[in-house]
Amino acid sequence: MAVKTLEDLFIHELSDISSAEKQLAKALPRLARAVENPELRQAFETHLEETQGQIERIDEIVELTGFRLKRIKCAAMEGLVEEGKEVIEEVEKGPVRDAALIGGAQKVEHYEIASYGTLCALAKQLGLNDVIKLLQATLEEEKATDQKLTLIAEGGGNQKAASK
Amino acid sequence: MAVKTLEDLFIHELSDISSAEKQLAKALPRLARAVENPELRQAFETHLEETQGQIERIDEIVELTGFRLKRIKCAAMEGLVEEGKEVIEEVEKGPVRDAALIGGAQKVEHYEIASYGTLCALAKQLGLNDVIKLLQATLEEEKATDQKLTLIAEGGGNQKAASK
Repeated sequence: MAVKTLEDLFIHELSDISSAEKQLAKALPRLARAVENPELRQAFETHLEETQGQIERIDEIVELTGFRLKRIKCAAMEGLVEEGKEVIEEVEKGPVRDAALIGGAQKVEHYEIASYGTLCALAKQLGLNDVIKLLQATLEEEKATDQKLTLIAEGGGNQKAASK
Repeated sequence: MAVKTLEDLFIHELSDISSAEKQLAKALPRLARAVENPELRQAFETHLEETQGQIERIDEIVELTGFRLKRIKCAAMEGLVEEGKEVIEEVEKGPVRDAALIGGAQKVEHYEIASYGTLCALAKQLGLNDVIKLLQATLEEEKATDQKLTLIAEGGGNQKAASK
């Protein structure tokens, strides 16, 4: 880990979320194809575009700060993507699978909300003012995606599954 | 996974969070001892008591529903607890370690927020009205803990670490 200062911690956390976003961008097309509810598919497709923008923001932060990201693989996102694959393999296409994938996607969003929240707090302490705006823009997108998924879970997929 | 219905999904998710809470209850005393900031130590100690109450609520849900929990180990919580141990081993006691442990604890809280949020949505669809209240009580505690940790990060530990 080699973390001695808050700057080291910021770089560690940014490296972790950079890995997480890239893993998610790879996984989202398969998740989008696996769902039945068209509203959910659309949400996954929109979030893929947002995720690509979020990866670009991380590149901007690296340019602004000159920090060198570490090559680490985010184990949490690896586990969450793996769980999504298991759902697709073991639950047939339909409302129960959709409900399971919404639950998994909300774990992903909350991992990112926690991570960007920590990065914002660290950036404030480090006085990285240009960086804070970029982090906050992403944080707001993650929160909005989580809320959209809650609405889909409450209004759509789950009701159909309950009548099964 | 063997999930075919929303009820199966509810049982799977409840089994997962049950494992997560038990792992967290085991890990929190060590985390509390490892921090420097007394406010943070107190927050971890309070959350240990809450976690024990949350485990009791899961037992109540099992009694109310007659559902049989599955013996699964929550891999996400295992990973998060492991990361906490790494921080303790590799970062010396002080404000940088505190900031790292706050970040890790907020990932834990957000995992739980996502999980209880999904359980609430599923309980509503399944018409488990007595269960919803228990789940919501825990969900509110998790959100409050997350907010408390944000306040500690913004007002306390991180500022001292930035002056290092």
